[in-house]
Amino acid sequence: MSVLNFHIAVVLGYALVIAASSPVANADTHWTVPRIPGASEQALVLGRDLDGDGDPDEITIRLEVVEITEEVYPGEYVKFWVFAPEGQGMTSIARVPSPTIRVEEGDRVRIILQNTHYFPHTIHPHGTIHPNAMDGVPDITQAAVNPGESFSYEFTAKNPGTFFYHCHVQPDVHVHMGLAGMLIIEPNRPNNLFTHLVIGAGRMPDLAKATVEAGYGREYSLVYMDIDARLNRIPAAYKDPREIEKRMHREYDSTQRQPNIFLLNGRSFPFTLRDTPIEVKSGERVKLRILNAGERPMKLHTHGHHPTLTHVDGYPLPVGMRYTRDVFAIGAAQRIDLELRPGDDDVYASGPGVWIMHDHTEKTVTNKGISPGGDITTIVYEGFMGDDGLPKVATSLDRYFDPEYYLGHVPVFDPAIFNTTLEDYEYGWPEEEPLGGTFTYPVRQSE
Amino acid sequence: MSVLNFHIAVVLGYALVIAASSPVANADTHWTVPRIPGASEQALVLGRDLDGDGDPDEITIRLEVVEITEEVYPGEYVKFWVFAPEGQGMTSIARVPSPTIRVEEGDRVRIILQNTHYFPHTIHPHGTIHPNAMDGVPDITQAAVNPGESFSYEFTAKNPGTFFYHCHVQPDVHVHMGLAGMLIIEPNRPNNLFTHLVIGAGRMPDLAKATVEAGYGREYSLVYMDIDARLNRIPAAYKDPREIEKRMHREYDSTQRQPNIFLLNGRSFPFTLRDTPIEVKSGERVKLRILNAGERPMKLHTHGHHPTLTHVDGYPLPVGMRYTRDVFAIGAAQRIDLELRPGDDDVYASGPGVWIMHDHTEKTVTNKGISPGGDITTIVYEGFMGDDGLPKVATSLDRYFDPEYYLGHVPVFDPAIFNTTLEDYEYGWPEEEPLGGTFTYPVRQSE
Amino acid sequence: MSVLNFHIAVVLGYALVIAASSPVANADTHWTVPRIPGASEQALVLGRDLDGDGDPDEITIRLEVVEITEEVYPGEYVKFWVFAPEGQGMTSIARVPSPTIRVEEGDRVRIILQNTHYFPHTIHPHGTIHPNAMDGVPDITQAAVNPGESFSYEFTAKNPGTFFYHCHVQPDVHVHMGLAGMLIIEPNRPNNLFTHLVIGAGRMPDLAKATVEAGYGREYSLVYMDIDARLNRIPAAYKDPREIEKRMHREYDSTQRQPNIFLLNGRSFPFTLRDTPIEVKSGERVKLRILNAGERPMKLHTHGHHPTLTHVDGYPLPVGMRYTRDVFAIGAAQRIDLELRPGDDDVYASGPGVWIMHDHTEKTVTNKGISPGGDITTIVYEGFMGDDGLPKVATSLDRYFDPEYYLGHVPVFDPAIFNTTLEDYEYGWPEEEPLGGTFTYPVRQSE
Repeated sequence: MSVLNFHIAVVLGYALVIAASSPVANADTHWTVPRIPGASEQALVLGRDLDGDGDPDEITIRLEVVEITEEVYPGEYVKFWVFAPEGQGMTSIARVPSPTIRVEEGDRVRIILQNTHYFPHTIHPHGTIHPNAMDGVPDITQAAVNPGESFSYEFTAKNPGTFFYHCHVQPDVHVHMGLAGMLIIEPNRPNNLFTHLVIGAGRMPDLAKATVEAGYGREYSLVYMDIDARLNRIPAAYKDPREIEKRMHREYDSTQRQPNIFLLNGRSFPFTLRDTPIEVKSGERVKLRILNAGERPMKLHTHGHHPTLTHVDGYPLPVGMRYTRDVFAIGAAQRIDLELRPGDDDVYASGPGVWIMHDHTEKTVTNKGISPGGDITTIVYEGFMGDDGLPKVATSLDRYFDPEYYLGHVPVFDPAIFNTTLEDYEYGWPEEEPLGGTFTYPVRQSE
Repeated sequence: MSVLNFHIAVVLGYALVIAASSPVANADTHWTVPRIPGASEQALVLGRDLDGDGDPDEITIRLEVVEITEEVYPGEYVKFWVFAPEGQGMTSIARVPSPTIRVEEGDRVRIILQNTHYFPHTIHPHGTIHPNAMDGVPDITQAAVNPGESFSYEFTAKNPGTFFYHCHVQPDVHVHMGLAGMLIIEPNRPNNLFTHLVIGAGRMPDLAKATVEAGYGREYSLVYMDIDARLNRIPAAYKDPREIEKRMHREYDSTQRQPNIFLLNGRSFPFTLRDTPIEVKSGERVKLRILNAGERPMKLHTHGHHPTLTHVDGYPLPVGMRYTRDVFAIGAAQRIDLELRPGDDDVYASGPGVWIMHDHTEKTVTNKGISPGGDITTIVYEGFMGDDGLPKVATSLDRYFDPEYYLGHVPVFDPAIFNTTLEDYEYGWPEEEPLGGTFTYPVRQSE
Repeated sequence: MSVLNFHIAVVLGYALVIAASSPVANADTHWTVPRIPGASEQALVLGRDLDGDGDPDEITIRLEVVEITEEVYPGEYVKFWVFAPEGQGMTSIARVPSPTIRVEEGDRVRIILQNTHYFPHTIHPHGTIHPNAMDGVPDITQAAVNPGESFSYEFTAKNPGTFFYHCHVQPDVHVHMGLAGMLIIEPNRPNNLFTHLVIGAGRMPDLAKATVEAGYGREYSLVYMDIDARLNRIPAAYKDPREIEKRMHREYDSTQRQPNIFLLNGRSFPFTLRDTPIEVKSGERVKLRILNAGERPMKLHTHGHHPTLTHVDGYPLPVGMRYTRDVFAIGAAQRIDLELRPGDDDVYASGPGVWIMHDHTEKTVTNKGISPGGDITTIVYEGFMGDDGLPKVATSLDRYFDPEYYLGHVPVFDPAIFNTTLEDYEYGWPEEEPLGGTFTYPVRQSE
């Protein structure tokens, strides 16, 4: 058991790697854990190296439940509930989705849920091998964790792969409010030192040993969600938890739910381009870990690129079973791992540039029905990221950063093509009765 | 051709195996077919052993169409139409879903549809090899079977596997009213004696020879449905068949359908726990035959367990193509066979206990939008089933058996966590206008 | 480079092969390209044979954007926007879906979009290998092509397979308005002469060399769409493009979209039977190229037949991974190639007759909620097609060709089964309050 002083980084906010400001010597473990800015010293504690292979095998994570409001696309502020590392004082590093948690095969994992929220919650480790009592299903395997209470989810990490964790209390509401994140079990390797909490998912600040062995040069965790803004408005609109309970859990009919906001790592287009791009370079192999934390059956399309499916729900596909396509179906709660091979090889990749990637269910690439929006992000080749933090595109993305666009206040096309001006646009024509009588169609929610 | 006196069991109601009360000698066939209680002597007739291998190869089943009302979860009574074995006198053994039918490869099968209902119907044997005239598509392969008429569907069972049968008249309505069941063709083996009709699906009372050969110790047929209660209310609310025809087939717009009740073997949580549990024991291999008889794209999640996919739509996957995951996509009308390996092996199973299993599309694990509900059932290990017929859970399930819960009349959380009492709960706070103006969201259907 | 005089056929309208009326010598290329009736001489230009293997390797296609109205089922006229070969004078050969385009691996392809419409558009070649600048994503890879402008999409065809092309401007609207078609890259073979534009998709008038080599005797392109008639009514109901822009792109909320018309190759049942049947003969192998150009997750069911999946999204599955089932899941934008083996072999096919094929999501086999409708077509064996161009069915399809049926003006069942007449049908019973109070259900859109 060696004493290491390794650098643990945390991704904060928009996929920026923040160097720790004040390393904390962890006396009983000899690991120096860099502080996560804004988090308490106890948010992540790395314990003993049980198998003597040079990395910590006792991982303790303390999560709170935090209600936050985020601007997911220009002008759209949405209320979320997320699991967040235990905060320090009044600060919080809460971010939607809940952090990507990474542990190693064989680790003794302790995730302590400290319910700092006004509703009961649990954590269900989805897809992992764990004792029944740690399954997080209220009433069935435990009592729900009430406000002010704690519960320690303890298990030894077994089968490596890409998993999921989420609240299992009233899941038709709580999962979609944001109490969901990716859980990765990295294969056991010596000196396997990596960041254990990636806030907001996105680019991995470092690769685990097995990922490097497999030939990857980069890795991303991509968490997709779908939101019904009308549900998320309830806790923003009412103050009394009893009123919120009644409206969210008894009035709101989730069976009639039709989501209208579509998120990748907590953002919708155009913010996705800035906050969660897929940066690549030719010749590199990129590992994409994808979780559909929403309800919709996703069909993920990579423009110009044909990734290879390597894992389903964490389990590797035998090499002969791996296949390549351009639209991958990912159902609710499913995870797939893809191997993306940027380059120009006439089979897997079309060459450098800026390529969009999105669910091909067209309505999901809108923001409340206004296109383009939703979970579109871009695969950006080296040299194609601009100094402004946005990919270098053919024209300009400016109008999509104007909240007026997604409010439907301005025409989606340049008025000049209709030989008119913006000023005259909506006053240039009289509203007339439609031909053939009136008819209705789904109209955007008024603001 | 030997003369056997074998015991044919029938599963009635809640997965209880009922011993036959009055065996009936079947003179021309020499098989003694135990009477299905409530069914006529002609409901199931086993004929000659054509290949001389010790089991009957002429199977005749007489089905009626019966309108029934079932309590699918506490307080929710739903009208269904089902295929049911020909009844005796005024009795009926109708149950939703329609019975699981099992025959053997090579059998000469005769399913006689006796239309005892007020609407026309047919039977489409879905996925089997059969003559075109037996395909059950109205107008295309036959005239629909009108009220009072009969039609005999006759074919020789070919490819073994898990199939489906359902009415093909106005299928957007009739299938979802319950005229759907699982059809299994067992591989041909000597002395292959098994129950031919499993009422309401669920646990198989006996295994076919090939299932035993494959190493299975238990087998379940799991039929999933999704129901729009507003459709099923129509025949409950009107009396004249013409009025029912008009409202169900011309007014009701199935393209705008959003189901709100989700069934496994005809029950929603919590009744599923009692009526259709998956009982297992460590070390045993369990065969799950799963049919999505509804319309939704299901994502079936097994907590703590990773089954292996062995068959799709009845056809075996080559061994090298079988894969293991924790969320299986099952589309409308698709069938999958899973191998579940209860135990504690660090790969396929997490060990003993009570583990829930459900569609992971969260809205489908509600009852009309109130959670928990829908198709949740439990994988219950030996020793974990209580004397009350419910799995031994961490707390209590009592409140879910109270119809008030699913009517939305009581808070879903214990009022004490809000420092209030049930009496004061809804009167303790004044209804106020929401912040930022009014807004609408999908509200549960009023009762 | 030889000088060939080969016959290029075009499928017009309802899968009829039209012999070219006035061949045009293409001076600089020496290929004689038969004229596509109604198209200009420049709509399809075949250039040089670059690799000297006896077929043209420079393919130029000129597409316009045309607004058309089609009767998709009896009485239902729907407005579409389609890509169509450049027209001649006032004629147009526009048809929904946009034409199936076929080119050869290695071809230098030029698809010139001439925007003859009042809105901006682009073409995204979906799934192919092509330069970033040819990806067709507005703002990201190019400026949208404004009304009156042109853009030339140029790329060398690489990986062979079944692909897709569609407008990428406001795709939640434009794709579903009909700006979508199948794009096939045929493997490179000598003397590979085939029709490059198949108007309206459907049966291929000729097979490419590699398809013949693979043992196929027939081939179909099957393009599925789902339509919300309320969206398509907007450009029919308003005249000013600004008003259309506002209503289609800012008012209409595509996230709340629920399609109500379901098309195969631009038609719904019963027109599908006449316009896009799958004609087969026993012993022949038939290649089905299937594109889900709509949004719904399709579950395609072939009655009595079990095709084998050979390709996903254009890429061949290794032979050992190919599987056979009867319900294939096809997500939005996905393509599958199936091998259908008509015959009577007890495994893959049930024998001669008329077998329906359809999405098994029951609501999609209705026309605005009235059954039968939607994308049902029939697999018709040799000898089973009638002289009237409809398959020989068990009874009569006449009533489905009467617009009154899909307006809901006549009962879906023969009134005689209720011991009444059509005259008395709706007047024979008084409208009464339903038992147990009133309730609502999704009602068909009024006409």
